[in-house]
Amino acid sequence: MSKKNALVRLTAIQNHISNQPKPTGPTDLTRERENATFNVKHMNWLFWGDKEFAEALQDAFLIIQRDPNLCFPAGHHFDLTRPEQREFTMKQIFRYRQLRESLKNPLLIKALETAMSIYSESFMMRTYVHDILFLQSFQVFGTKEQYDSYIDDILKWKVIGCFAMTELGHGSFLRGLETTATYDSKTDEFIIHSPTLTATKVWIGMAGQTATHTIALCQTIVNGKMYGVNWFIVQLRDQKNGRLLTGVTAGDMGEKYGRNGLDNGWIQFSHVRIPRTNMLMRWAKVTQEGKYIPSANPTISYSTLIGERLTVLPGAVSTFGQILTIACRYGCVRKQGANDEQIMDYQSHYVRLMPCVASTYIIEIVNRMIMNKWQEIMKLVQTNQEEFASYLPDMHAISTGLKATVTWWGCEVLERVRRSLGGHAYSSYNAIAGAIGDWGVVTTGKKIIGSAEFMNNFQQIRSITKSTLSDEGQLLDLNYTLEMYTWLSSSTTDEETTWHNNQVYAVKLGELYSYRFTLSEYMKAIEEYSSSKTSEFKALVPILTKLGNLWAIHLIHDSLGLFLERGYFNGEQVQMIRKCYLELCKEIRKECIPLVDSWGYPDFVLKAPLGKFDGDVYPAYFNIMRAAPDCIGVPSYWEKYIKPLTNS
Amino acid sequence: MSKKNALVRLTAIQNHISNQPKPTGPTDLTRERENATFNVKHMNWLFWGDKEFAEALQDAFLIIQRDPNLCFPAGHHFDLTRPEQREFTMKQIFRYRQLRESLKNPLLIKALETAMSIYSESFMMRTYVHDILFLQSFQVFGTKEQYDSYIDDILKWKVIGCFAMTELGHGSFLRGLETTATYDSKTDEFIIHSPTLTATKVWIGMAGQTATHTIALCQTIVNGKMYGVNWFIVQLRDQKNGRLLTGVTAGDMGEKYGRNGLDNGWIQFSHVRIPRTNMLMRWAKVTQEGKYIPSANPTISYSTLIGERLTVLPGAVSTFGQILTIACRYGCVRKQGANDEQIMDYQSHYVRLMPCVASTYIIEIVNRMIMNKWQEIMKLVQTNQEEFASYLPDMHAISTGLKATVTWWGCEVLERVRRSLGGHAYSSYNAIAGAIGDWGVVTTGKKIIGSAEFMNNFQQIRSITKSTLSDEGQLLDLNYTLEMYTWLSSSTTDEETTWHNNQVYAVKLGELYSYRFTLSEYMKAIEEYSSSKTSEFKALVPILTKLGNLWAIHLIHDSLGLFLERGYFNGEQVQMIRKCYLELCKEIRKECIPLVDSWGYPDFVLKAPLGKFDGDVYPAYFNIMRAAPDCIGVPSYWEKYIKPLTNS
Repeated sequence: MSKKNALVRLTAIQNHISNQPKPTGPTDLTRERENATFNVKHMNWLFWGDKEFAEALQDAFLIIQRDPNLCFPAGHHFDLTRPEQREFTMKQIFRYRQLRESLKNPLLIKALETAMSIYSESFMMRTYVHDILFLQSFQVFGTKEQYDSYIDDILKWKVIGCFAMTELGHGSFLRGLETTATYDSKTDEFIIHSPTLTATKVWIGMAGQTATHTIALCQTIVNGKMYGVNWFIVQLRDQKNGRLLTGVTAGDMGEKYGRNGLDNGWIQFSHVRIPRTNMLMRWAKVTQEGKYIPSANPTISYSTLIGERLTVLPGAVSTFGQILTIACRYGCVRKQGANDEQIMDYQSHYVRLMPCVASTYIIEIVNRMIMNKWQEIMKLVQTNQEEFASYLPDMHAISTGLKATVTWWGCEVLERVRRSLGGHAYSSYNAIAGAIGDWGVVTTGKKIIGSAEFMNNFQQIRSITKSTLSDEGQLLDLNYTLEMYTWLSSSTTDEETTWHNNQVYAVKLGELYSYRFTLSEYMKAIEEYSSSKTSEFKALVPILTKLGNLWAIHLIHDSLGLFLERGYFNGEQVQMIRKCYLELCKEIRKECIPLVDSWGYPDFVLKAPLGKFDGDVYPAYFNIMRAAPDCIGVPSYWEKYIKPLTNS
Repeated sequence: MSKKNALVRLTAIQNHISNQPKPTGPTDLTRERENATFNVKHMNWLFWGDKEFAEALQDAFLIIQRDPNLCFPAGHHFDLTRPEQREFTMKQIFRYRQLRESLKNPLLIKALETAMSIYSESFMMRTYVHDILFLQSFQVFGTKEQYDSYIDDILKWKVIGCFAMTELGHGSFLRGLETTATYDSKTDEFIIHSPTLTATKVWIGMAGQTATHTIALCQTIVNGKMYGVNWFIVQLRDQKNGRLLTGVTAGDMGEKYGRNGLDNGWIQFSHVRIPRTNMLMRWAKVTQEGKYIPSANPTISYSTLIGERLTVLPGAVSTFGQILTIACRYGCVRKQGANDEQIMDYQSHYVRLMPCVASTYIIEIVNRMIMNKWQEIMKLVQTNQEEFASYLPDMHAISTGLKATVTWWGCEVLERVRRSLGGHAYSSYNAIAGAIGDWGVVTTGKKIIGSAEFMNNFQQIRSITKSTLSDEGQLLDLNYTLEMYTWLSSSTTDEETTWHNNQVYAVKLGELYSYRFTLSEYMKAIEEYSSSKTSEFKALVPILTKLGNLWAIHLIHDSLGLFLERGYFNGEQVQMIRKCYLELCKEIRKECIPLVDSWGYPDFVLKAPLGKFDGDVYPAYFNIMRAAPDCIGVPSYWEKYIKPLTNS
């Protein structure tokens, strides 16, 4: 049946159902919106930083929605095949690059980049690989000459880059990598080589189909001696025709669990010769005579990983924000039980979702603070290398801990949202399934342990042995709850902190540190808003504080076992915490629709009919199913495999 | 590039890599296999019930592997599009039905059904919908005449059935369903009607493309009065040509998160007339004169759901068994760190996986016990309806609790396995991503609360207030640990057990009951094996006990917070439990390869190169990526979207 016929028939069906009652969803959401104790528009400004950027972002969304080269085919983004997804994402990038040229307003350009990254995970990943991983390698590891000779081509995407680190046999343990860069002083060249199958670079974003160049991490061999890993520029494909260069074998990794618009690839090098000057030599160097000059600060090799880890934060906010908007709206529209209650009014429902909503605010605000700090530090690369290096251990610890903790919490958020949608989460047309797939790649294989850097200044708190909690009101003081958390994260026994004896509890400890960090940073932000000159933001402090309280109590509630084991709380205090936790969830639940509205994700970005702003969810959901390819009609295999049975 | 060329080139690449060291995987697994303290072949018999069935199952796997109508296209099952998956699954069913006719051995037929269900989730679901949900409705709800008039056609798949319960606006809350069956005494017919859009039946397996008939759950209206829900036989499609009958609109639900070989569909009825005798009338009845005779025991309406819920257990075993085989083999082959340690030797790795391995044994053994019991009860439908009804409340409670608990634990198992594979879990070619998608539909939206039936006989245990644990050895006595668990599940306060006051903790309580139940049933099984006449099984009691101990301590360890809160354990006892838990994990880890080998899943069933029996995983993994469609070559969109950038 043609698409047009399908629509005609659809309308007929809809008219045919005579007794159609008025949908209650819109009324429900209108009522929920009246519960707001704060100004949603002002919260939208705060969430995106300021009024100007928040408005530019809405403009950017409009540009996307109206541009067929940016906007996915209506409703059926999830029906695209893998090759179609790969192509569509590159089409988006191409169009986005055209628009960058024509748009004059730098704020709008920035907003468009953000909006596209929110709209498409695969767009975000492909541009991230080139614009951040590849480009920053030149900034951080390249000499001034190296940077200058490539930067124009990189900015124009004349050179398209990827970042080749992980290998088939080796993940994040860099010292174990097998790819070699052997210096040949006769020709002043390095020979890049994959000596074994397990040395194959794998999971390299954009290496599958797009990248013309890569930055490859290789074991450096000079005069037969191994000097550890360094970064090398290697061209992969001819910029004229896209063909692989001699000695380079690279391909696409095929079907993945998510992000199928990103061409993850594998690369094998077979004695590829590159000029010596293709080694990025800002820190370690190899001279023409074959002398290896090591880096003064070897930890710098890992510094691009800090930025890479931190990007998990905006990624989390974008994912959480979208799926929680869907879950909260649907939860307020969906009815269940004898009295047709909104499912969001079930305690078991809102207690699972409200801490997720709170965490989205906390993570976004903390994210902005850390990103600003990291950008300041990055500027030092060009001006004060020693100071730059001095910040690295701390940022290394923070970024490692946050990445692990936020990705784990992300799995929890996705799972909670998935369950909150019941069976409908299972349909690809409600975006949740896709979000779970996309998130999959973010999670690290193992939890990573936070650095002991966090342990400073906790000494006086360690001397406390019992909680002084005696009144529920104390739990609404963020300084008070933070102290509880500080106590817990510093109260572990020596045995528990020792990596080899007890990895399991050490992992838990790392998580505690990172959560404590988010809480203390968030408190600093609230303090700033409290004394802000923008009265719109000042007025939001009460609701922001309430969100912080919920996050704090949620964290304590989640670790009650550890508190009890160490004798900090007694049973009565635990009951108090439980009660306060449930009450805070109930309070936030009242404003859950205004809180998700404030993020301002348009319906077309959410891609989920059940999360529609107007609450009229069922016709939208049905229409999208109804328009799925081959929805109605005798299936092509009827004659072969069904008819012989039913006509036997 | 043609497939043949790709293979030629592949071989060239492999030869080209001159320095290829001998893979260590095979040696690693050989060494692991020498650690077995038990006979793997005998454990294989025990796991599948007995020697005869275990051997028939291996024969059945061989039949599948050698039959191109049953076996997926080599290696690339995951590259099939949605329409291809839908078709292939029906092809498998068609071929399977042919084989049933030709195979003479009933044990082999049963084994083939089991093997196909293990091999393909979508095959399992499609046959399950027809052979169990649809057929059992006739057995349980149909009169003898109704059963007799349909059974031959059902067994031959001349009638292909589905089971239409859930609606767009209503999930498992059956009283809220909107589809109506209105009796018209003038014509002695029921009129089946979907009065609203939200009344659309959705998620109905096989309704999308295959089913000719459905059993529909409808509100029964007689003489203008609603009498509650009953089951009605409604024909959907013409058996001759597969076309929808007048008044029936039904379609496929399109793209899903998993199980894309199953045609989930939606159905709308527009005043469809069926004979009065199409109401399944074993219990409730409507006479020709329009008199409604209610069922003597209305809970019987829900009894098919018991069987439906219980099938989660074999499904869990099949999923857990396959993905844990992959995870354990890969964990013993993969190396990491400065000393090239097997990642399975990291405590944080094996502590996450070993409880999952233990749980697979426990769930399979408990599953067999419950299934036997349920089959005995089902026989009573025909012989002693009163006794049948008397078993239902208990089975209702057990099946509800187990379904919720096992599906939740299943999410945990999948997540642990996913992480244990690191980035490689993200490739569709390692089966884990697909398993996660398939599992998604199993999970219920909310945790369901176990019935208070479990609460009997716990009174004397409630009087205990402190644990008597003083020696680690006590923890290896299953009776002793079971008692701890019993104490915890009966120690909750009244407030906590009240549904409306505190749903969150009530949910936790239901979970405790169900886990306690698995443990006590498993102990019965061990007792039976201990006194078994089969000496092969008797010899397995020590390892089975160790697995039971690990499961028991894992459950206690998981609920330490609750034990502490109620003052049952002191800090010292908790340390003892933690120590014992880690030690048990370490002991089971030593035998993890023999333990997963015992399940006997062939490589082609696992569909994951990283889980290969021989441990030579990397070439297999690379070959499968290398053979992915369009793996190498300039992408089709190069000219349009890349070249204009790189040649700018």
